[in-house]
Amino acid sequence: MNITAAYTDLYQLTMAQVYFETKPDGRAVFDYYFRNNPFNGGYSIFAGLEDVLNIFETLSFSSSDVAYLEQHGFSKDFLDYLKDFRFRGTIYSSKEGDVVFPNRPILQVEANIIEAQIIETLLLNILNFQTLIATKASRIRYSAKNEMLLDMGLRRAHATGGYYASRAAVIGGFDSTSNVKAAEDYNIPSSGTMAHSFIQSYEDELVAFRDFAKYRPKNCVLLIDTYNTLKSGLPNAITVAKEMEATGNKLLGVRLDSGDLSYLAKKTRKILDDANLGYVKIVASNQLDEYVIKSLKEQGAPIDIYGVGTNLATGKPDAALDGVYKLSEFNGEPRIKLSENIIKVSLPYKKQVYRMLDQNGMFYGADAVARASEQNVEEMIHTYDATKSLNLTRFAHEALLEKVMENGRKTNPARSVAEIASYSKSRLEKLPEEFKRFQNPHIYKIGLSSSLKQERDALVLKHKF
Amino acid sequence: MNITAAYTDLYQLTMAQVYFETKPDGRAVFDYYFRNNPFNGGYSIFAGLEDVLNIFETLSFSSSDVAYLEQHGFSKDFLDYLKDFRFRGTIYSSKEGDVVFPNRPILQVEANIIEAQIIETLLLNILNFQTLIATKASRIRYSAKNEMLLDMGLRRAHATGGYYASRAAVIGGFDSTSNVKAAEDYNIPSSGTMAHSFIQSYEDELVAFRDFAKYRPKNCVLLIDTYNTLKSGLPNAITVAKEMEATGNKLLGVRLDSGDLSYLAKKTRKILDDANLGYVKIVASNQLDEYVIKSLKEQGAPIDIYGVGTNLATGKPDAALDGVYKLSEFNGEPRIKLSENIIKVSLPYKKQVYRMLDQNGMFYGADAVARASEQNVEEMIHTYDATKSLNLTRFAHEALLEKVMENGRKTNPARSVAEIASYSKSRLEKLPEEFKRFQNPHIYKIGLSSSLKQERDALVLKHKF
Repeated sequence: MNITAAYTDLYQLTMAQVYFETKPDGRAVFDYYFRNNPFNGGYSIFAGLEDVLNIFETLSFSSSDVAYLEQHGFSKDFLDYLKDFRFRGTIYSSKEGDVVFPNRPILQVEANIIEAQIIETLLLNILNFQTLIATKASRIRYSAKNEMLLDMGLRRAHATGGYYASRAAVIGGFDSTSNVKAAEDYNIPSSGTMAHSFIQSYEDELVAFRDFAKYRPKNCVLLIDTYNTLKSGLPNAITVAKEMEATGNKLLGVRLDSGDLSYLAKKTRKILDDANLGYVKIVASNQLDEYVIKSLKEQGAPIDIYGVGTNLATGKPDAALDGVYKLSEFNGEPRIKLSENIIKVSLPYKKQVYRMLDQNGMFYGADAVARASEQNVEEMIHTYDATKSLNLTRFAHEALLEKVMENGRKTNPARSVAEIASYSKSRLEKLPEEFKRFQNPHIYKIGLSSSLKQERDALVLKHKF
Repeated sequence: MNITAAYTDLYQLTMAQVYFETKPDGRAVFDYYFRNNPFNGGYSIFAGLEDVLNIFETLSFSSSDVAYLEQHGFSKDFLDYLKDFRFRGTIYSSKEGDVVFPNRPILQVEANIIEAQIIETLLLNILNFQTLIATKASRIRYSAKNEMLLDMGLRRAHATGGYYASRAAVIGGFDSTSNVKAAEDYNIPSSGTMAHSFIQSYEDELVAFRDFAKYRPKNCVLLIDTYNTLKSGLPNAITVAKEMEATGNKLLGVRLDSGDLSYLAKKTRKILDDANLGYVKIVASNQLDEYVIKSLKEQGAPIDIYGVGTNLATGKPDAALDGVYKLSEFNGEPRIKLSENIIKVSLPYKKQVYRMLDQNGMFYGADAVARASEQNVEEMIHTYDATKSLNLTRFAHEALLEKVMENGRKTNPARSVAEIASYSKSRLEKLPEEFKRFQNPHIYKIGLSSSLKQERDALVLKHKF
């Protein structure tokens, strides 16, 4: 599938047609935010922005899209509009790769309401997913510390969603991907070892290893669990490693893909070391995630490289980030969505978000949301509990939302995945440990400026029944 | 992203290059199967086949793929091979939409080993995902009984994977999708209502409803929870319904998207009925899945249409089907992959699968796996426990694997999604209830012919250490 503007929910077009008839020049501000960090974690890594902006720059309906919609009852005038549809809005956003938190705007779209509505689904579809995966990758990186991490999730990824998963994995801290297409298009490192089928295609495991080493002398990792890890795979790998030494090459590693990885890694390390093969690395895979890797590290398993598949590429167990896109202003007037659940009440107006820094330049643990027009936000108030507030005058702060698109064109130079990943790492280093731990992480505070809170509360009262 | 042959794992190409150098004419048989039904269920719905076959018919490496691989150390001769790469293999498969079970071949690829290896990742990527989603959809259909089911998961789907999710949802029993692109390309029904933003863009909810009804008089569903469901949304919807009656139209429905859906649906139904609006349907959405819908039905919630999003489109909570692709024959010789876990030992040889039918034509609850060359399979034996067997002579049976591709071309006419969905429904009707229940479903038996079991056991012993 090529992405076109028809990769959206039908109701966007239904609503757009009514806007087209009744308020074609309506100007909307929408907020993108999410309500909960995935994985019961203390933070999220914002990802997908560069893709979204690139897609929006050229997004249009194909002629077959228009023909399809014509059969489904849309009006001639509106179809003519769709033929010429382009996104010409302005977008303010957090930087891709930044550490972000729930219930504050991550991104704002300011556009004609028809355009803002048509792009909604695609924006959510890309940002929700990549943010989910980058966050998962970041958690796995946290467990793996400095060991190498390979994404090998493509076969269990959600069809072509796996393309974006590989990108987001690198943003969140993975070193490379098995996904050739993603590596090619996003200029990220690719890597891979060998499959059981390769060994099975030979009568003899040793011959299979020899052939592989012959044609891949510089980057050879041998999979040693096809028949028996310690009695067959490892001895054969050692034989080949010695033969490689004789021709001036070095076996890069052996890979464990089943069994008790801690036990097998320790045995394998000892046997390799006893054979003077201390340089041969141990690669491990098989249903790994942040918890399994943490446990392996705690057990002292001497694993050098972790291959992570399903749990990374699908963002298991959450499988989704709950990001939403809510109207906050229309033709300059504030807008609100109420809910029986107070934490689901949206925030009106165009906004800015300020991050508080402590005296060492670390994140203090508080982002303040204010109206975009406000100067000098001196205090932030708990979103729902007016008795809780924080004096902001003692903090240095950063404004987090910056203009990234104007009149449908990107305003900043393209950022490579490597740059975004590096930026993300630098931001995560500023986040105190207590927000990173897996068990009951500390809650990062989000508060409203007094002005925004007053305006929000007044709107709630206005719509109260 | 356009799917090209580079949408694969790097190791497929690394291995392929070695095959190219050492056994370019090697002929392989690979089995596609999975090990566990998702969602702790008793069956799965096989989906994605038609897409896979269509993709394989034209799959190739683009010139930029080849240029990328050239930079990554592949040999000139092998790159020339990749430039001309086409899949020319033969595929035997279960019918798309069939009810399938773990640990028996769902599909077999018989091809040159280089081709069979290069397509592996893409085959797994598409079949694993669509089978996951079709199975989830089928479970939701089971709970919803005859009520209408709408897929609205695109915004939380895994990027462009959402395109395939919408297709698989319909195969599994959904009536329509919000996803315009999928509806267009797969010729499946599309549907949609309205978003909160539409109402928020007006000063007044009633005016918003009126405008929507004016431009959508034949298919109007009003979202009634933006401010207050029972005190604002519903009364305004009733006003508009009466105004529509005056112009000869009928309000199709009202939609609940928050709050206690059972309570609100009952209240809403009563109020609508009291207003002589018995024909107005109630649509409900908000984090629905098979369990929530089952509970709503048990509570007697008068909901006519369910909109299901995240849990459907992401296959939550499993998020992946554990499908694998294992070499079972090479150049006519049987192949096996051992494992410390006996249930992970693969089955050698090219195979056929037979489904036993009872005297009423219902599925008896047993599929027998035999060598493809066997005639008259009279007994099936438990895969690991030789003391358990089943005499098959008393059953009528069906052979489940049929040729669907030969020399890289589809051998059967294209099947529409509607046909596949209808076939799937007819197959599921033959599956006894005890395999469909959510709690501890009955285990469908998979057994081996005595010949296959003997051959498998002999190969295990051959590789034993």
